[in-house]
Amino acid sequence: MLNVYLSGEIHTDWRDQIEAGAKGLNITFSAPVTDHGASDDCGVAILGAEPDKFWHDRKGAQLNAIRTRMGIEEADVVVVRFGDKYKQWNAAFDAGYAAALGKALIILQPEEHDHALKEVDAAALAVARTSDQVVQILRYVLEGTLPKA
Amino acid sequence: MLNVYLSGEIHTDWRDQIEAGAKGLNITFSAPVTDHGASDDCGVAILGAEPDKFWHDRKGAQLNAIRTRMGIEEADVVVVRFGDKYKQWNAAFDAGYAAALGKALIILQPEEHDHALKEVDAAALAVARTSDQVVQILRYVLEGTLPKA
Amino acid sequence: MLNVYLSGEIHTDWRDQIEAGAKGLNITFSAPVTDHGASDDCGVAILGAEPDKFWHDRKGAQLNAIRTRMGIEEADVVVVRFGDKYKQWNAAFDAGYAAALGKALIILQPEEHDHALKEVDAAALAVARTSDQVVQILRYVLEGTLPKA
Amino acid sequence: MLNVYLSGEIHTDWRDQIEAGAKGLNITFSAPVTDHGASDDCGVAILGAEPDKFWHDRKGAQLNAIRTRMGIEEADVVVVRFGDKYKQWNAAFDAGYAAALGKALIILQPEEHDHALKEVDAAALAVARTSDQVVQILRYVLEGTLPKA
Amino acid sequence: MLNVYLSGEIHTDWRDQIEAGAKGLNITFSAPVTDHGASDDCGVAILGAEPDKFWHDRKGAQLNAIRTRMGIEEADVVVVRFGDKYKQWNAAFDAGYAAALGKALIILQPEEHDHALKEVDAAALAVARTSDQVVQILRYVLEGTLPKA
Amino acid sequence: MLNVYLSGEIHTDWRDQIEAGAKGLNITFSAPVTDHGASDDCGVAILGAEPDKFWHDRKGAQLNAIRTRMGIEEADVVVVRFGDKYKQWNAAFDAGYAAALGKALIILQPEEHDHALKEVDAAALAVARTSDQVVQILRYVLEGTLPKA
Amino acid sequence: MLNVYLSGEIHTDWRDQIEAGAKGLNITFSAPVTDHGASDDCGVAILGAEPDKFWHDRKGAQLNAIRTRMGIEEADVVVVRFGDKYKQWNAAFDAGYAAALGKALIILQPEEHDHALKEVDAAALAVARTSDQVVQILRYVLEGTLPKA
Amino acid sequence: MLNVYLSGEIHTDWRDQIEAGAKGLNITFSAPVTDHGASDDCGVAILGAEPDKFWHDRKGAQLNAIRTRMGIEEADVVVVRFGDKYKQWNAAFDAGYAAALGKALIILQPEEHDHALKEVDAAALAVARTSDQVVQILRYVLEGTLPKA
Repeated sequence: MLNVYLSGEIHTDWRDQIEAGAKGLNITFSAPVTDHGASDDCGVAILGAEPDKFWHDRKGAQLNAIRTRMGIEEADVVVVRFGDKYKQWNAAFDAGYAAALGKALIILQPEEHDHALKEVDAAALAVARTSDQVVQILRYVLEGTLPKA
Repeated sequence: MLNVYLSGEIHTDWRDQIEAGAKGLNITFSAPVTDHGASDDCGVAILGAEPDKFWHDRKGAQLNAIRTRMGIEEADVVVVRFGDKYKQWNAAFDAGYAAALGKALIILQPEEHDHALKEVDAAALAVARTSDQVVQILRYVLEGTLPKA
Repeated sequence: MLNVYLSGEIHTDWRDQIEAGAKGLNITFSAPVTDHGASDDCGVAILGAEPDKFWHDRKGAQLNAIRTRMGIEEADVVVVRFGDKYKQWNAAFDAGYAAALGKALIILQPEEHDHALKEVDAAALAVARTSDQVVQILRYVLEGTLPKA
Repeated sequence: MLNVYLSGEIHTDWRDQIEAGAKGLNITFSAPVTDHGASDDCGVAILGAEPDKFWHDRKGAQLNAIRTRMGIEEADVVVVRFGDKYKQWNAAFDAGYAAALGKALIILQPEEHDHALKEVDAAALAVARTSDQVVQILRYVLEGTLPKA
Repeated sequence: MLNVYLSGEIHTDWRDQIEAGAKGLNITFSAPVTDHGASDDCGVAILGAEPDKFWHDRKGAQLNAIRTRMGIEEADVVVVRFGDKYKQWNAAFDAGYAAALGKALIILQPEEHDHALKEVDAAALAVARTSDQVVQILRYVLEGTLPKA
Repeated sequence: MLNVYLSGEIHTDWRDQIEAGAKGLNITFSAPVTDHGASDDCGVAILGAEPDKFWHDRKGAQLNAIRTRMGIEEADVVVVRFGDKYKQWNAAFDAGYAAALGKALIILQPEEHDHALKEVDAAALAVARTSDQVVQILRYVLEGTLPKA
Repeated sequence: MLNVYLSGEIHTDWRDQIEAGAKGLNITFSAPVTDHGASDDCGVAILGAEPDKFWHDRKGAQLNAIRTRMGIEEADVVVVRFGDKYKQWNAAFDAGYAAALGKALIILQPEEHDHALKEVDAAALAVARTSDQVVQILRYVLEGTLPKA
Repeated sequence: MLNVYLSGEIHTDWRDQIEAGAKGLNITFSAPVTDHGASDDCGVAILGAEPDKFWHDRKGAQLNAIRTRMGIEEADVVVVRFGDKYKQWNAAFDAGYAAALGKALIILQPEEHDHALKEVDAAALAVARTSDQVVQILRYVLEGTLPKA
């Protein structure tokens, strides 16, 4: 059984695509909370409001860290997706975190970011362009079979 | 003696400011290669040209990784600077790498990036706004003295 | 599945509250022996009496350590509760032990102890005031859902 | 050469006593910042004021953690002193942190705290009552000589 | 669930006593091969005879090491029994191996060996005299209950 | 239950022999992808063609590394088979990788390679000549029984 | 200061070339014993003759392992050279050992071995063809300077 | 530079022989306290008398553990000497402790103990019969030179 953590971009349905494509494979997927609002406000919603946005964010980021670090630490494979928009520093942070733990790292990103992601890519065992390629990699790793030409 | 690795932005003189400010403290500083051209092209300059930019970048990023990983692994404190421009995913990657190794992490960044860096900041022991604050932290950690009010 | 170790104060029913509140979540809770008398006397009850109270305590504390260290080491999340009374050094010891192992740490404590617990809190990913907040954190970490406003 | 970290109580001169007694031994001592005011306020003094005391404390505790964790991690022996007053949860936290890292732990404490410290003592290789006993232990460990009867 | 490895003396039925006494507890026991003849000769029986007794022993000891190291590494608790006869250096070796891995160690030995085993005992969380005491410890660790007075 | 990773030579049916011989034992076997063509071309088949054979190989070798490293890291026992032909450097690499992780290592190789494999053999707990011997070792490790004379 | 371990082929003067080229750089080089005869016979020369070549080799390989493992474990960078002749399984074993420890790995090998070494190369941060390239990498890593075009 | 810890038997001058023989080699030797009386009584001499011999021994053994664990943990090579007399379980314990930490282990023992020490020997990289052989091994490891025939 393979534990796969799906880190990064939360504005498209790439996680659903991968989970759907991997149906039938012996994989357990995990991921951060992908509800953007909940992810931003969880800290103050549970532990009380903060007038200063910096500490508002800190409270939330630390609660999210409980989940994300556990997800990465328990994963065999960490997939990190970089999308078109936003800074996405948390994605790169997760990639560094996973790399330092020796996790098998797959980066999923459009070609336009190749140069900016070169250090991240260099720590990965695969750089994929599509969710489907990630599925094919997971199937190959588990079952040794390749997509038909 | 304190080993401090200065990661991140390479277009301003923040490293020089910190090293100058820390003169007299028992600190050894290390850093990535900050010559942008050399950093980009080191791989092909030494190991031979690559027609494909992706592998050109890979060869260079892997050589740089020899230095950067050693710098982080040997550091007691890792300072990661985020500037105004560029994607800076390698900086966030270094922060994640350092966090996973349990290094004391100091993030140096302008306030405008606070929300985008909230996960990175949440893994740090300090978020500084100026190089001078970083120097004051290092002095306090080593000598227990605070700046005069 | 989440392993949660509930460390600290054993004179109120906070563990029961958390376990009741977390009913239905995929969590396995563990805890020290909370029968105060058994916890104090287990060593001599099993291994023979000691005339010197110091060694009486030592024998017991070492037996309890078999359980508490295993509980912390196997936990994903360690909750440490500080109450109103007693020295509670064992609670702070557990927090330090968990922090050094990189466990996700939640401190549950009344505001009056904030200053005295500042080093402990600074190693935690959350500081909660009520058992219910701990439950909400665990639910959010597992299911991504927040309490209704 | 022996690295010894002196953790805990900062209101008496026990550290000075140990360092004076150990003069001539091949030991490097380290310790937290023992200036109580600086220790409490370092965070806001360097990184800016916080209206909320909780975050005021957090900023300071995290800066102090840079020094204390490094001190413990680099130590061969960690001495933790519990005095007569205050909660001293940071001392117990340091003891737990050191224990989890497998450090040789010496607890220095008055008999009156024996029962309350039994879990902490049970993780230690020695429980001393006086600074002089700590010095004798360090001398014995380094040179194999005992105090004259 | 508790993994308990029963190391040491193989000439009495102490392992059976413990397993019988622990019936009903959630424990998985493991142990070395206790058939003395098989343990001595396994190497040459499988991999071919050796004219030199030293290598005869080496081949066997290395096969046994596959099982014993795995047993210790997977254990939560390691019980090491010292009996009346023989050198029993393998038992002391296992105790040292378990101690270095931070396992909870219980030594089961007659009083007459107390002085000779003082370094081994000092690394243990309990020194028991009877198999029944070991059972009581395991029951207390798992269920928090003590034997009736 | 024993996890056994079968590394090395992929041109004979030695893995099938071992798995057949071990039928009934509580073992989970894993192995690299043994379809030579798929193993060589997986990288470009999934992630796109490379004109340069060096990077063609790199892409494939990195995908295979996801599976092989996971196999070794999760294994209790790593069996590495050296056959008659080819360089088999990946087999020796796997043996070194497993040795550094402290895995129980069994080398399966013909006598003619004894001298060339002496460093590899010296890191192993057994050097076997036949698949049947490997099965006998696994049975002995699990059940303590030897083949009948 | 950089610790560099030079593993592998011992029949050409590649180590001398690298050490000469790196003169003036702050590097400490280490290596296996490169006297082929001494390396083969050290075990029996010191510890007594063995009639069986297998154990003759074992005794020597284990003595050499004291040096080689220490060399790899203390290294920041491990260079592994594959030459034209012999099986060189010990070189590949060292590469795997270094990779599992997370060492920065540089492979030095002629192009003709590219396919056979693809798994080894895929674990490396650089694949060099000449000793001079290795020197240039080490200079770049330490000083950030590239060879003149 | 090589750190060598000399564990075990303290009634003959084998340590002196090794240190004398190794004169001129770049080695730092460490060892337990070899004054038998001091070693037995250090605990009570420093920390106060114990009426019960068991705790008298415990106090001493724990002080000695500060030195012996540090010696083993800092060593590159651990030599363990078994002599003719006594139980010597602490020697076997040290060997197991060193083995679990992956230290290079050399056992120094008379042939008559071969069978009883087979598990210990099987974890070692050399089994020597004389102090001179140990010196020759250390010289070979450091300088690559063998004794003249």
